[in-house]
Amino acid sequence: MDEFELIERYFAGHDRGPGVVVGIGDDGAVLQPDPGRELVTVVDAVVAGVHFPVDINAADLGYRAVAVNLSDIAAMGARPRWMTLSLTLPGADPDWLQAFASGLHAAASEHDVALVGGDTTSGSEIVVSVQITGDVEAGKAILRSGAAVGDTIYVTGFLGDGAAGLSLFKDGKTDPGLCEAFLRPRARVEFGRSLLGVASAAIDVSDGLIDDLGKLLAASGVGGRVDLDALPLSGAMREHFGREAALGFALAGGDDYELCFTAGGALPAAGDLPVTPIGTVTAGDELVLFDQSGPVAFEDGGYRHFR
Amino acid sequence: MDEFELIERYFAGHDRGPGVVVGIGDDGAVLQPDPGRELVTVVDAVVAGVHFPVDINAADLGYRAVAVNLSDIAAMGARPRWMTLSLTLPGADPDWLQAFASGLHAAASEHDVALVGGDTTSGSEIVVSVQITGDVEAGKAILRSGAAVGDTIYVTGFLGDGAAGLSLFKDGKTDPGLCEAFLRPRARVEFGRSLLGVASAAIDVSDGLIDDLGKLLAASGVGGRVDLDALPLSGAMREHFGREAALGFALAGGDDYELCFTAGGALPAAGDLPVTPIGTVTAGDELVLFDQSGPVAFEDGGYRHFR
Repeated sequence: MDEFELIERYFAGHDRGPGVVVGIGDDGAVLQPDPGRELVTVVDAVVAGVHFPVDINAADLGYRAVAVNLSDIAAMGARPRWMTLSLTLPGADPDWLQAFASGLHAAASEHDVALVGGDTTSGSEIVVSVQITGDVEAGKAILRSGAAVGDTIYVTGFLGDGAAGLSLFKDGKTDPGLCEAFLRPRARVEFGRSLLGVASAAIDVSDGLIDDLGKLLAASGVGGRVDLDALPLSGAMREHFGREAALGFALAGGDDYELCFTAGGALPAAGDLPVTPIGTVTAGDELVLFDQSGPVAFEDGGYRHFR
Repeated sequence: MDEFELIERYFAGHDRGPGVVVGIGDDGAVLQPDPGRELVTVVDAVVAGVHFPVDINAADLGYRAVAVNLSDIAAMGARPRWMTLSLTLPGADPDWLQAFASGLHAAASEHDVALVGGDTTSGSEIVVSVQITGDVEAGKAILRSGAAVGDTIYVTGFLGDGAAGLSLFKDGKTDPGLCEAFLRPRARVEFGRSLLGVASAAIDVSDGLIDDLGKLLAASGVGGRVDLDALPLSGAMREHFGREAALGFALAGGDDYELCFTAGGALPAAGDLPVTPIGTVTAGDELVLFDQSGPVAFEDGGYRHFR
């Protein structure tokens, strides 16, 4: 048993679950799809190590690598089922691996996702690539392209907390709620499922509201109006940064992993999850922001400074 | 459009094919499984750049990253269908990307595999992680665990050519056939399909025959006898390295991507592909090598020097 076979031990034993015929240990996993359902497959990678802006701990890295993929599954209204992991590592530090695996398994087990395959390779920095396959009732997947003029635009949770948490980290500061939003984003899987047949379009907010809502509107061939005064901004974020900077995080910060969706009718119950109407789908192809004073200018695109 | 959105353009337009309901461009791909089939999913990563032993060109890297995954699919007797790509890159060199994408698409199109999703991230070295989902008639996947005492052990193609080709590269030499075996391994997908219901067990030879056959025998709870004089060694490899070194490559070199399988009855036609009986499945748990002089000692494990 070599170093990397040893590493794989940290990921074994989590490959049982519904539909898993053969898990880890053969050339591939054998999986039984449910009749009447289509598959939904997503992939997202996280590069840590030398280029990562934050000294993120291994457990949070593992959790986050799974959660960002679950968020894509949620945006399709799908049910996550099976996960594979491709892990590139400079070496095999048992403490690091133990922590990383615990975070990874924690995020997966919250949604009954089995880890059915993986590959570990040696490299100079940490690259974590997770791929999740889920399923959805045939013909029912929520796409980005279904928004219709007159639909209401909604977002779940609070916007900007992830980017605000990252900003605090970079300044050597901390705030439990904001840092948690960045390190351990909660994928909105259950609420996404409840939007099947309700939402006309959905996307997960990973690159900032302007960028991601812009993609949804473009895919649907429509425009939109968003009321800045309606954006759900957390008290913690406003307290740390003030309203102007908070709005910047909310509009273009990224790392939210909330759902942005459109719907024409009533919404399902969301329990404790805030679901906020923030605007309306319009004809045309423009995304217009406004507040009580009228239209507001912004620089297009996520991750860029908001003025 | 930023650098990495630009990169993704090189991979667009190859997401059509049977069962692809929604390809690239939404939060996830939507795929329609065929009734009566199970899914087979595999993942394998290649790290290039600073740590890669060979200055492999981009087109070969793309081809190889797909082929090593197709080889795992072949070893299960499955049909490859859909692929996702997770690509970490230091930057966006258009010539490199064009060549890489051409090799990737070439390997995929040989087996009608659609590229249905991907993610591109920035990192200090090149990491290519490919994941392929295929399918197989329900209950029919060829596992490692079915070998029975008395079955014949077979391998496809020639053994050792990939490792021999890599060795030539390292010495600054070349040989068209051997280098091709390393750079563009041919996954035995069609022959793997024809082994359904015929082979009792199968594995793809990626870490060397001793290592991989050893895994198959261990999974099946049996032993084996392999006749070194029967191993299929190419004329090119023997000419460059002599019989002793050639045997070392064949037994423990790795990078073959041939199938090693066991069967009790007659084999299907293999066309131009050599299929060679090399030994027999035995009771016990030992893998015994022998030649005309009797049993031969070896060091356990692939990638290690053979004496």
